[in-house]
Amino acid sequence: MNVNNKHYRTIWINEKSPKTVRIIDQRGLPNKFIVETINSVEQMAVAISDMHLRGAGLIGVAGAFGMYLAVLEASRGNSFDKRLKAFADRLQRTRPTAINLTWAIQRQLNAIRNVHSMADKINTSLETAHLIANEDIASCLEIGKHGFSLLKKIASRKKKGPLNILTHCNAGWLAFVDYGTATAPIYLAHEKGLNLHVWVDETRPRNQGSKLTAWELQQHGVPHTVIADNTGGHLMQQGLVDVVIVGSDRVTADGHVTNKIGTYLKALAAHDNGVPFYAAFPSSTFDWKTKNMRDIPIEERDPREVKMIEGWRNNKQVEVALTPKNSPAANYGFDTTPNRLVTGLLTERGLCNANRKSIARLFPQHGA
Amino acid sequence: MNVNNKHYRTIWINEKSPKTVRIIDQRGLPNKFIVETINSVEQMAVAISDMHLRGAGLIGVAGAFGMYLAVLEASRGNSFDKRLKAFADRLQRTRPTAINLTWAIQRQLNAIRNVHSMADKINTSLETAHLIANEDIASCLEIGKHGFSLLKKIASRKKKGPLNILTHCNAGWLAFVDYGTATAPIYLAHEKGLNLHVWVDETRPRNQGSKLTAWELQQHGVPHTVIADNTGGHLMQQGLVDVVIVGSDRVTADGHVTNKIGTYLKALAAHDNGVPFYAAFPSSTFDWKTKNMRDIPIEERDPREVKMIEGWRNNKQVEVALTPKNSPAANYGFDTTPNRLVTGLLTERGLCNANRKSIARLFPQHGA
Repeated sequence: MNVNNKHYRTIWINEKSPKTVRIIDQRGLPNKFIVETINSVEQMAVAISDMHLRGAGLIGVAGAFGMYLAVLEASRGNSFDKRLKAFADRLQRTRPTAINLTWAIQRQLNAIRNVHSMADKINTSLETAHLIANEDIASCLEIGKHGFSLLKKIASRKKKGPLNILTHCNAGWLAFVDYGTATAPIYLAHEKGLNLHVWVDETRPRNQGSKLTAWELQQHGVPHTVIADNTGGHLMQQGLVDVVIVGSDRVTADGHVTNKIGTYLKALAAHDNGVPFYAAFPSSTFDWKTKNMRDIPIEERDPREVKMIEGWRNNKQVEVALTPKNSPAANYGFDTTPNRLVTGLLTERGLCNANRKSIARLFPQHGA
Repeated sequence: MNVNNKHYRTIWINEKSPKTVRIIDQRGLPNKFIVETINSVEQMAVAISDMHLRGAGLIGVAGAFGMYLAVLEASRGNSFDKRLKAFADRLQRTRPTAINLTWAIQRQLNAIRNVHSMADKINTSLETAHLIANEDIASCLEIGKHGFSLLKKIASRKKKGPLNILTHCNAGWLAFVDYGTATAPIYLAHEKGLNLHVWVDETRPRNQGSKLTAWELQQHGVPHTVIADNTGGHLMQQGLVDVVIVGSDRVTADGHVTNKIGTYLKALAAHDNGVPFYAAFPSSTFDWKTKNMRDIPIEERDPREVKMIEGWRNNKQVEVALTPKNSPAANYGFDTTPNRLVTGLLTERGLCNANRKSIARLFPQHGA
């Protein structure tokens, strides 16, 4: 998407030094647009765990580029396989909930395994990283098309006013390589002239909504309003939300949706008010193995992210305290919305219901 | 309650100058404890609307003391009745949702109406303000006793671990004159040695939870953990919440509960997970007239409260921006939880169900 009218992806190979990777360091947004050069696996691991970049798809693609850097680093010395495995483990440990990370790292390991010369291993891992990035983009585009049909249908039932969409966190292009998932239908609909307006949940504690989604939409000229996470239920009671679309970090074969903490509360409110609730994600987000939604690991992050907040003052990024010094805090990163609250799943293959049968019909290779 | 081991109320007549009122200016908490002297009706109106003080009960008591200042000011000149009415209107307009404000101002007007000499009017309004403050304290104490019985009962069903209570916003002593409503049972239970722990919703956008409730509990030594508002649903899914207790700003005769924005989302989650959900409030919070919960006025506040946040840095209070400069924001102050999601109402007269019949049994003078 465009930043100050120049096209960007969120991650790419450094044109000047192709053995390094460049990413948008999202920590400066919405006020500063920073590009960071990643020179090592360790630097990529820190970028993922400290959230220089984040988002379901982008974490996976960053894992894939991280594995390219891992092959490069492991190739400069002995014990290639052992060191590569250690690098893979290091990357894997950065974010436990995002299934795309596991998926991308495993795909890289599989791709490299049967390649023999070191030069070929390097080339294969670079190609695989590019492939994963391009597939991410293609999936987002397809999700956009399927989602746009859906939005048009919902909008056609409205008598007047814009189509009001509520979203939580950032499942925008900053969470992927381009376009995003929850936002792809929005960008497409906006481009095609559909009258729409987006309610942006600020998404505490890290404010990906107020800092990233609002910035994306504003850069793109999409009408939107930032709200506290507490607000969505009231808006739905008042008929001010026509549809909820969120992204996802992991979806089980039964259609249970793990996403940013607070998503479950919005799904409950949508269900209570007859508002359709959709999760949009590429199929790499499916966790085909986990049966019980209680077995999905939920990341617990540093309580400091709840006790402190970063914002901008006089063009400087400043961190301030929000709680008494001695009050403990807890910081769960995700929650799981049970399939009974999910109206539908939007993937690159189209829309399906949030149940095993309907998902298996769209993805028959994974069985029912 | 105690602040640094000295007992305070949230509002009182200035010992040194009894024609002025003193309040705890809550805007400095949790880092600075500030007492403000209120010399005029206008100053009290600003203190209420700009939230130097806030909270269902305290807004009412502040309105009552504001009316005492109004009688004093109106008595110094002509057109007493006309000026008193204007002062009452000024105070009334400060916060539209809180029913206690209307109730307290009206009670003062009724008390003063049949008193003839100016000196008696002044005395009567001062006495009425004291009476309303003392009734607020007595109600909170009674709510504490009834609520403690309830907590003991819920705790007795637990096999191990502390009783986990979740609360939203601040219905603590800072929201009343003393003890609070949602917190009164907690303080009493803590005093009696019940093993308990409180999940404190930070309560965006004004963070009354992380700034006020956490501070109260910490000053009092009650175990607690601050969480983002998004977290409660996940905690309930995990069995980490035994009971939810919130305050209320307005309750209809049918038991619909208007409280801080986001309360409805917690009630939905509690209902979905079989967690009991209680609203605690003095009976002055009842709105006996409004039939349809959609007719309850929901205050919309300055969007700036969503776009900016105040916190502490190097012992200074600092405001930082959280959104892109050009992104609009909306700031609804309250939402209404329908009675079907409310397990019970805790008032000074005891516990009742959230329906017209059960409420009328406890408050027969208002009819069914």
